[in-house]
Amino acid sequence: MEEKLEKINHILEALPYLIKYSGKTIVIKYGGAAMVQEDLRASFAEDIVLLKYLGINPVVVHGGGPEINQLIKSLNLNTQFIRGHRVTDEATMEVVEMVLTGKVNKQIVSLIQEKGGKAVGLSGKDGNLAYAEKFLMEFEDESGKVQSLDLGLVGQVNEVNPSILFTLQAEGFIPIISPVAMSKEGQTLNINADTMAGAIAASLKAEKLILLTDTPGILIDGNLVTGLNKQLIDGYIKTGDISGGMIPKVECCLDALDGGVKRTHIIDGRVAHSVLIEVLTNQGIGSLIE
Amino acid sequence: MEEKLEKINHILEALPYLIKYSGKTIVIKYGGAAMVQEDLRASFAEDIVLLKYLGINPVVVHGGGPEINQLIKSLNLNTQFIRGHRVTDEATMEVVEMVLTGKVNKQIVSLIQEKGGKAVGLSGKDGNLAYAEKFLMEFEDESGKVQSLDLGLVGQVNEVNPSILFTLQAEGFIPIISPVAMSKEGQTLNINADTMAGAIAASLKAEKLILLTDTPGILIDGNLVTGLNKQLIDGYIKTGDISGGMIPKVECCLDALDGGVKRTHIIDGRVAHSVLIEVLTNQGIGSLIE
Amino acid sequence: MEEKLEKINHILEALPYLIKYSGKTIVIKYGGAAMVQEDLRASFAEDIVLLKYLGINPVVVHGGGPEINQLIKSLNLNTQFIRGHRVTDEATMEVVEMVLTGKVNKQIVSLIQEKGGKAVGLSGKDGNLAYAEKFLMEFEDESGKVQSLDLGLVGQVNEVNPSILFTLQAEGFIPIISPVAMSKEGQTLNINADTMAGAIAASLKAEKLILLTDTPGILIDGNLVTGLNKQLIDGYIKTGDISGGMIPKVECCLDALDGGVKRTHIIDGRVAHSVLIEVLTNQGIGSLIE
Amino acid sequence: MEEKLEKINHILEALPYLIKYSGKTIVIKYGGAAMVQEDLRASFAEDIVLLKYLGINPVVVHGGGPEINQLIKSLNLNTQFIRGHRVTDEATMEVVEMVLTGKVNKQIVSLIQEKGGKAVGLSGKDGNLAYAEKFLMEFEDESGKVQSLDLGLVGQVNEVNPSILFTLQAEGFIPIISPVAMSKEGQTLNINADTMAGAIAASLKAEKLILLTDTPGILIDGNLVTGLNKQLIDGYIKTGDISGGMIPKVECCLDALDGGVKRTHIIDGRVAHSVLIEVLTNQGIGSLIE
Amino acid sequence: MEEKLEKINHILEALPYLIKYSGKTIVIKYGGAAMVQEDLRASFAEDIVLLKYLGINPVVVHGGGPEINQLIKSLNLNTQFIRGHRVTDEATMEVVEMVLTGKVNKQIVSLIQEKGGKAVGLSGKDGNLAYAEKFLMEFEDESGKVQSLDLGLVGQVNEVNPSILFTLQAEGFIPIISPVAMSKEGQTLNINADTMAGAIAASLKAEKLILLTDTPGILIDGNLVTGLNKQLIDGYIKTGDISGGMIPKVECCLDALDGGVKRTHIIDGRVAHSVLIEVLTNQGIGSLIE
Amino acid sequence: MEEKLEKINHILEALPYLIKYSGKTIVIKYGGAAMVQEDLRASFAEDIVLLKYLGINPVVVHGGGPEINQLIKSLNLNTQFIRGHRVTDEATMEVVEMVLTGKVNKQIVSLIQEKGGKAVGLSGKDGNLAYAEKFLMEFEDESGKVQSLDLGLVGQVNEVNPSILFTLQAEGFIPIISPVAMSKEGQTLNINADTMAGAIAASLKAEKLILLTDTPGILIDGNLVTGLNKQLIDGYIKTGDISGGMIPKVECCLDALDGGVKRTHIIDGRVAHSVLIEVLTNQGIGSLIE
Repeated sequence: MEEKLEKINHILEALPYLIKYSGKTIVIKYGGAAMVQEDLRASFAEDIVLLKYLGINPVVVHGGGPEINQLIKSLNLNTQFIRGHRVTDEATMEVVEMVLTGKVNKQIVSLIQEKGGKAVGLSGKDGNLAYAEKFLMEFEDESGKVQSLDLGLVGQVNEVNPSILFTLQAEGFIPIISPVAMSKEGQTLNINADTMAGAIAASLKAEKLILLTDTPGILIDGNLVTGLNKQLIDGYIKTGDISGGMIPKVECCLDALDGGVKRTHIIDGRVAHSVLIEVLTNQGIGSLIE
Repeated sequence: MEEKLEKINHILEALPYLIKYSGKTIVIKYGGAAMVQEDLRASFAEDIVLLKYLGINPVVVHGGGPEINQLIKSLNLNTQFIRGHRVTDEATMEVVEMVLTGKVNKQIVSLIQEKGGKAVGLSGKDGNLAYAEKFLMEFEDESGKVQSLDLGLVGQVNEVNPSILFTLQAEGFIPIISPVAMSKEGQTLNINADTMAGAIAASLKAEKLILLTDTPGILIDGNLVTGLNKQLIDGYIKTGDISGGMIPKVECCLDALDGGVKRTHIIDGRVAHSVLIEVLTNQGIGSLIE
Repeated sequence: MEEKLEKINHILEALPYLIKYSGKTIVIKYGGAAMVQEDLRASFAEDIVLLKYLGINPVVVHGGGPEINQLIKSLNLNTQFIRGHRVTDEATMEVVEMVLTGKVNKQIVSLIQEKGGKAVGLSGKDGNLAYAEKFLMEFEDESGKVQSLDLGLVGQVNEVNPSILFTLQAEGFIPIISPVAMSKEGQTLNINADTMAGAIAASLKAEKLILLTDTPGILIDGNLVTGLNKQLIDGYIKTGDISGGMIPKVECCLDALDGGVKRTHIIDGRVAHSVLIEVLTNQGIGSLIE
Repeated sequence: MEEKLEKINHILEALPYLIKYSGKTIVIKYGGAAMVQEDLRASFAEDIVLLKYLGINPVVVHGGGPEINQLIKSLNLNTQFIRGHRVTDEATMEVVEMVLTGKVNKQIVSLIQEKGGKAVGLSGKDGNLAYAEKFLMEFEDESGKVQSLDLGLVGQVNEVNPSILFTLQAEGFIPIISPVAMSKEGQTLNINADTMAGAIAASLKAEKLILLTDTPGILIDGNLVTGLNKQLIDGYIKTGDISGGMIPKVECCLDALDGGVKRTHIIDGRVAHSVLIEVLTNQGIGSLIE
Repeated sequence: MEEKLEKINHILEALPYLIKYSGKTIVIKYGGAAMVQEDLRASFAEDIVLLKYLGINPVVVHGGGPEINQLIKSLNLNTQFIRGHRVTDEATMEVVEMVLTGKVNKQIVSLIQEKGGKAVGLSGKDGNLAYAEKFLMEFEDESGKVQSLDLGLVGQVNEVNPSILFTLQAEGFIPIISPVAMSKEGQTLNINADTMAGAIAASLKAEKLILLTDTPGILIDGNLVTGLNKQLIDGYIKTGDISGGMIPKVECCLDALDGGVKRTHIIDGRVAHSVLIEVLTNQGIGSLIE
Repeated sequence: MEEKLEKINHILEALPYLIKYSGKTIVIKYGGAAMVQEDLRASFAEDIVLLKYLGINPVVVHGGGPEINQLIKSLNLNTQFIRGHRVTDEATMEVVEMVLTGKVNKQIVSLIQEKGGKAVGLSGKDGNLAYAEKFLMEFEDESGKVQSLDLGLVGQVNEVNPSILFTLQAEGFIPIISPVAMSKEGQTLNINADTMAGAIAASLKAEKLILLTDTPGILIDGNLVTGLNKQLIDGYIKTGDISGGMIPKVECCLDALDGGVKRTHIIDGRVAHSVLIEVLTNQGIGSLIE
């Protein structure tokens, strides 16, 4: 009986969060280890289903994982590299879309349904959810001049039409979104999953945007910083404390906040149930940017 | 972190019950120790609020507790006793109603709202929720002849109009009901809280009727019986294994089942969070009659 | 036939008022003789039910009447008096709440239902309808200094959440409200019924607030004044023409007008059907403040 | 004040009828003196508007009155007579339709709106409300053989589509219907207003069908019979007590009862406010057939 | 098969217009040859029904045609003429209303229903659709002084209540409106059908107002001008290129644009299916004023 | 102008079909040449968008086409063959799903959106749309004994949950479905697109099921048979007139009719706009089975 009581007490500790987030939308970027490891996949799916039954509306945007590279390799595709970046040509884009939308997306849909939810997979193309434009990466060349690099079929979202998401949410479905979108000219473009999640969170004025990563959060001098804001982040980028792959992630969070999202989080997807820990416990997990 | 994870795992263990009871109605008869002890009152209120946020619709019917007797005593009311039963005359009925509807009911309403719910107190009179008729207790006299005993203003429900309950539920309110009802002739009648709960559960075709008692459940030879049905109960009554005050409780459960309630439970209100333990854990608690 | 025709003509004379008030809300403070005399109680209940069937939405806020004092006396409660005001201690507050919410309120609910309406009794606690804060009465002491007097558990409303009223109205129920509310700190407070009615009328942007009194209305030099406004009232208070217990009533009306109520009325509750006379005849009754 | 009170008492006497008929539909055949006399027209329009504001749904079907004959005469139309019946040829039908739908109907619509209602005029053609087929009058010739008489463009309703009526009622409009309908072959046909009213009442499963006539009701030996049923009527027709123009009226009532109308009435349209007297007073007026 | 394919291609060419006008309202003034010639009447009715089934909401306002004069002549009405204008006295107004509302309107309703639509005929009186005030024609007398001419019961619309139109549209009915309206004083007034259509289009913020005329559109030097705006029109009126009966038509269009209509058209009603040609083909027909 | 008129006449010839099919659902199996040829793909997408704008609800179920084989070949997958049938092992199933759901489906979605529709791609997994069970092909061996052949991950639909389709239709989205479904055991199964379309049509009680093929329809002795029923088909199968790949197609149609579909069609997808020709012209195209 004590054990049962402990369990119930644990559930009750979540009550303040249920009250706070009831009916709200939480957008989760799903990727990295959480998508690769069998046990983490299961725990993530449970988290999403539980959120829905707790009266909170999760929206999942997933990345690709290693399965894209694997198929590219199996097909012996010659992908060109410029300045260390792989250029997405049409053949590669086709593989990317097939794997993201036809394989990874459906695995997530299936897993969530196995756990008791009703999931519907979408790409940015479905229901005109997202349009994108080609993205030219800018960099400074040796002489300090800004140059732009054409990485091929890589895009950034410039229009989101969330009506399909509202339609699905209202009827109890959980949207699972793969980061592919069309340009207005009809080209299929590969989108960075973090920025796709950010754009969708902004269009929904979400309560939270949660980015699952393979780090504990934002580390400064090796220590996790649990709370940040734009000013602090700008400082840390200048000092180089935030650098590399973390820069686009924090920028994505700041853009989402600008777009009307209430809170953004960079959390450790390698921890089982990290999404629920973030949403339902009072210490949370990872770094909060608001 | 381990601690958080344990908490989350405990929440997740409730998922199958959320899936099962989502959108369903559970009627709870609230009384006894759970209504007297400060800590049990708080834990009960939390249970009700949590159920509502979990998407389950609780309806509470409460009894009176010692507060009625206390006020009767303070007022030096002369209550007549016939064959050991107190007769409810008009002065007593007035006290009963004031305490039940004007004090106990509002305490429960306030407590639930303190915990984050939106509760609305009703008596059977409000919104024509329940009508009753005078109840004559039948007994065999010494010669074996069936006699009926007029206990005064004591009634049994003979009509329930649940539309006020549906109205409140649809807008997120939790109904808290005191066991008083009018007769069609305009008399105020005192109703047994268990049978009031049963009648209301039947009118709502509730998923569960839960009776909180000050026993672990139905005990046979001192051991808790976790599952019973009509046949078993009839047997136990004949053999005297079920006797005394437990007989009206099991009859109330059987009537509710007849009226369309799916499952009924007699559980131990002296255990903190016994309602949640019953609804959200797989061993449950107390005795199930179905 | 002539008699029938006269009756019909009388009904038809109400048509302009039906057209004017169809779908509108009228808040009525019910108290005094209208609540004590058997025949006036019946006529009041008929008025409320008729209004509802005429497509107008009545909301009733009632006072306490002599029944509170009676119970206080029966219980030999020692109530302290400061400067002539009874201090509401906890024991007294308990009695006040029981009588208002558990007895008076239910009598009104029952009576309205007997006449064919569907009434639901509420106190300020139900559905978080009203929150209050402790009210300190200010007065000038002999030296002219403003002092504040702690009358105990007496409060003034500082928050009204009318959603429970809209919910009930939309489904055809008539709300009957007792003037008790909680403070945010969890104390039960006794509220003046006039100001409770005014606060609720303002929260509903009611078409009318009607205060039933035991006077013909506002009397100046012994003559009824049928129409007043803020300017006139301020003048009459200065001259002492409006004084004593009438001051809080006219202030309550002015506050309600400030809060968005269209018209306020102080009428004679000792006249049978005074509410209907006010609403459905062209001379009206009592004093109009607008 | 006494006068006001009398007025209010008269309104209150209508309360039981408001409770009984709230939300119900009453179909009224309007014609005869009530449509010709200025004062009766006004009183009829008031009755209809009042019913709507009392929450009862009136539907009016009107006849033609003397205006048709007047225009026929002004146009010197040669109308043929067979066995005393005027034959409705195309020129006559055109006049009938113009007067009924373009003049009489709009006069009623305007009058009701002047009194505060929102009326919409329809003929059987609008919204496919009613289709009819040509009606051949049967009679016995001198030799006792049944012959049928072609009266030209005279029809009887054989299909009613009440959806336009439900649409209008739901938005607060009062339908005013002229007794003209098309055949499936596209011919415009003149319909008897009583039977049109009966067919529409049946399609709406109306609470009441009221036929306004220029008699006090059904008279047997010169005395008004206030209550009849099919059996009594059949007897009176056999004995000749009911004869002439009253026969189609009682048959229309019996057909409406067969079609699902709850009660039918033949009342005196020459009495001001006879509709309200019927609906809102306890003795009613005229003859009830049920 | 080629023939079928050609047909389908023709339908598909309409797709951009379906996308553009889906769910929008188009008000059509119907009159002239299109209302007189048998084949044009049929083609007009088909156009209206097709528009409705294509998801576009047509509203028809019709004129009177020669049938009014014919009945006036048959009745030998003495109509007075002042300065060449016929004065509408009461007898004439009665004829006008009967013909417009009781004959012409119902012919259109019937024809549309024959083609498969559900039409409901209204005049400005129904549902308080339109109120008008007497219109005094202003002109300069010989001395250059502005005089006003009383043409009797001729009005101009000064209030439109479109709720009856929204009610009918929402349930799939097509409103057919005759240009008759009441003054607030209760007089029936004859309204110019073009301006009635313009006022109704403005009240609905219609996508298009289409005036069917017996000309190809606006002709300048004998050539059709397909696109105009206020500035061009003002110029053409000054130069006299637009003159006579075309002036009120273009003014009606400009007023409608001012009132919120998106585009207005003056097109040739003598061309079969001119409405559909305007709405569904890319060259359109007639003159566009925007 | 004549040309425009011809076009309009062609549109009008479709009116009877719009009236007939307005608001109805039509399920179309899309495959074969219509999915391979550039011009036929475009014409098909136009057909689907036009249907939606005409107020008819299309649902598309597509097959795979040559793209599956191409990827299998590129990946050098060893697919086993038993008795001439390719066995779908896990590696093959993965390819099938990626191509169907991640490539072909999104191409159709994009194309429809390019033409102005709002399409949402689904597989049977999304929203629990369809569950399947493994399908064992039965055949007679040489000795005449019935044997069953395990073809691997090939399934047949045994449960359809159309709620996601109703959700999407109600908000104006066009569902595009790829023929992949899960078994209750969690296996991904490849479904024959014809039978998937039939099962979905039955679950929607569709007005029509249209199978696009690369034949003119059902040919008997080389002649197209335009109308058939179960009896005729049974006869033709016995005589061998219907044989080979046409047998499963006609059986799929018969099953759909059994399941509540009104009419089924086997039509020539090689003809441009064959879907619209079937739905909107009076001779239709191909073979009707009803």
